[in-house]
Amino acid sequence: MSKHHVYKKIEIVGSSEKSIEDAIDNALAECSKSVKCMDWFEVVETRGHIVDGKVAHYQVALKIGFRIE
Amino acid sequence: MSKHHVYKKIEIVGSSEKSIEDAIDNALAECSKSVKCMDWFEVVETRGHIVDGKVAHYQVALKIGFRIE
Amino acid sequence: MSKHHVYKKIEIVGSSEKSIEDAIDNALAECSKSVKCMDWFEVVETRGHIVDGKVAHYQVALKIGFRIE
Amino acid sequence: MSKHHVYKKIEIVGSSEKSIEDAIDNALAECSKSVKCMDWFEVVETRGHIVDGKVAHYQVALKIGFRIE
Amino acid sequence: MSKHHVYKKIEIVGSSEKSIEDAIDNALAECSKSVKCMDWFEVVETRGHIVDGKVAHYQVALKIGFRIE
Amino acid sequence: MSKHHVYKKIEIVGSSEKSIEDAIDNALAECSKSVKCMDWFEVVETRGHIVDGKVAHYQVALKIGFRIE
Amino acid sequence: MSKHHVYKKIEIVGSSEKSIEDAIDNALAECSKSVKCMDWFEVVETRGHIVDGKVAHYQVALKIGFRIE
Amino acid sequence: MSKHHVYKKIEIVGSSEKSIEDAIDNALAECSKSVKCMDWFEVVETRGHIVDGKVAHYQVALKIGFRIE
Amino acid sequence: MSKHHVYKKIEIVGSSEKSIEDAIDNALAECSKSVKCMDWFEVVETRGHIVDGKVAHYQVALKIGFRIE
Amino acid sequence: MSKHHVYKKIEIVGSSEKSIEDAIDNALAECSKSVKCMDWFEVVETRGHIVDGKVAHYQVALKIGFRIE
Amino acid sequence: MSKHHVYKKIEIVGSSEKSIEDAIDNALAECSKSVKCMDWFEVVETRGHIVDGKVAHYQVALKIGFRIE
Amino acid sequence: MSKHHVYKKIEIVGSSEKSIEDAIDNALAECSKSVKCMDWFEVVETRGHIVDGKVAHYQVALKIGFRIE
Repeated sequence: MSKHHVYKKIEIVGSSEKSIEDAIDNALAECSKSVKCMDWFEVVETRGHIVDGKVAHYQVALKIGFRIE
Repeated sequence: MSKHHVYKKIEIVGSSEKSIEDAIDNALAECSKSVKCMDWFEVVETRGHIVDGKVAHYQVALKIGFRIE
Repeated sequence: MSKHHVYKKIEIVGSSEKSIEDAIDNALAECSKSVKCMDWFEVVETRGHIVDGKVAHYQVALKIGFRIE
Repeated sequence: MSKHHVYKKIEIVGSSEKSIEDAIDNALAECSKSVKCMDWFEVVETRGHIVDGKVAHYQVALKIGFRIE
Repeated sequence: MSKHHVYKKIEIVGSSEKSIEDAIDNALAECSKSVKCMDWFEVVETRGHIVDGKVAHYQVALKIGFRIE
Repeated sequence: MSKHHVYKKIEIVGSSEKSIEDAIDNALAECSKSVKCMDWFEVVETRGHIVDGKVAHYQVALKIGFRIE
Repeated sequence: MSKHHVYKKIEIVGSSEKSIEDAIDNALAECSKSVKCMDWFEVVETRGHIVDGKVAHYQVALKIGFRIE
Repeated sequence: MSKHHVYKKIEIVGSSEKSIEDAIDNALAECSKSVKCMDWFEVVETRGHIVDGKVAHYQVALKIGFRIE
Repeated sequence: MSKHHVYKKIEIVGSSEKSIEDAIDNALAECSKSVKCMDWFEVVETRGHIVDGKVAHYQVALKIGFRIE
Repeated sequence: MSKHHVYKKIEIVGSSEKSIEDAIDNALAECSKSVKCMDWFEVVETRGHIVDGKVAHYQVALKIGFRIE
Repeated sequence: MSKHHVYKKIEIVGSSEKSIEDAIDNALAECSKSVKCMDWFEVVETRGHIVDGKVAHYQVALKIGFRIE
Repeated sequence: MSKHHVYKKIEIVGSSEKSIEDAIDNALAECSKSVKCMDWFEVVETRGHIVDGKVAHYQVALKIGFRIE
């Protein structure tokens, strides 16, 4: 009986006009359509586009870990 | 008369269901129970747990600097 | 006819009492007074000052990219 | 006639109660079920869970490279 | 109506006997067979094999970003 | 009722004449004398001393995370 | 009589449809319009845009050093 | 009979109006009041405050290693 | 009434035949001719030229932060 | 009378079919044929080749320090 | 019968007036005069000198790996 | 007529009881016994030993570049 797990990590970039947290939510929402069992995320980069001197989109790159079996 | 200060930096991980800023607040609130004179923090890692395809907890690792004397 | 662009990146630190996003907004607002055509930003450091055991200011260092010609 | 190859790198986390090497083996064993032609790995992170003051699981994050064609 | 996009980043290694740029082209050509809407790349590593004291292959590792939806 | 936790991370260097895993065990064994509730570790550096051309001691630097409350 | 020099480093992103070297040339050509005495450059990032599965532009971020006095 | 040692590393910031070496000395002097058996240090950051266009304080962040038992 | 500040960071390389601290002083002295309100510096690189087997110049790259308004 | 030492660090990659520790041993054994007075090592990279879905060789890159005089 | 190999990595900087690839070739050509069995290279830094606003030399730092026995 | 140069970089650790600069000098003095044409150095690590709560030796790791031909 196996007592260990194996995980895969993928890198996803979410974007949002509102906030860094909302960009993370958007990344997870899109990703959850095809990936089951997402377990954790790690923020690897925070960037954004600027239009007319204001933030147009936050862009947050995440590593998302999920169990495979 | 001493004209210099010495600081210690410790690493604390705060968590929150709400936001990155709230995770930082929670880390500082817990830390302030035992550490006086916290002076600054530096975010060193932002991660989180995912439950049912949504962020369950933001986890923010901070270095917190405070004067020792 | 030129088909390429050249960009400059400068490093700006915005601060805010409210949130990380607000510190980014403050950096862009100040920067837009002298820089036209800001195009994107990259967060390079998130820090803050602590007063009385609470966050007094978030300080967010950004690289801001803009086209030069 | 093509004289070059193209590879993909994926990131997998293996775990084991026994050793770092066994965690790597477990990652490869799981991964080989869906990926043919695994060619090399690079250890990118070594962590672990602690239970009752002892290592419960080693967790080793690998990048695994394999040829695609 | 959604105003945000979500991207995935994958890591591909292209090789070429000729040049760094040709290794990038080869990576994109292979990758475009299965991925639609590739949007940008980031060079993460440049290496190569040496045979008889000369470059036999340039090997360029890229992160390739593409929109998912 | 609090639904969040706060963790502290400390950096410990364990050593062993036998193996990397044994150096980790030794670090945890010593650390568990004063720290309750150790939760995870992250390997941050692996080094060692050499005597007479052989490994005399493996030295493994760990960050150890534990809940504070 | 001064025997030392002081330099400033600025970060510029050049782009080109042709090659990495051409993107560097374009960055220097634009930069030389306003900066005298450019002395050296350091490549800090190589990226690019992809259109129709091919490289549309190489984008090379450089730090450029020049003497100030 | 134990043949291995366990060390702890803490991070201290020393400051000085005079020099980088003096800032290191100040950090060690303060730290030695509470820590016995300091064994080595590693410089992790060198910064400083500027007043009236001159260095007011060098600030040197050190990791200090000491044996625990 | 504004309660936040915005800072700019520029990168300067000072050199000196005497010491690392003197190279920092030289960088600040030159920089203070055009920049008011320099607030802090961060050492990002320490290098030097060698002539006849001895240090000819220390070269210290600094990021210098100053308030803009 | 000299009270200081000078060390050289070289980078060696050892390999082994058995374990990470054995790859380190193999690197040291080969290196000790030409280098006297090896003093310490630092692991800088852990990789490996995969054959038939299993680890064929661990490859461990080490910096090895030894006194010169 | 030995089933493992040991490699040494050395760091070489090649330069060229023409291209990054040519600077790599020049480094390998010079290095092959004294080193047999060069096996692979890794680009660790790309820089250059600027004269009259144009690239005078590309300077590419490589790690070169070769088998020792 | 060759218009390019090739350089080698080696890593040396100098030590000194007095200062960081003196440790660099000691490294260069020892190194100049066997290496001609040392051209530049880059500080890669600053550490030290502590005895009785004071700095016993500064240890400065340098990369030293010199022309080969």
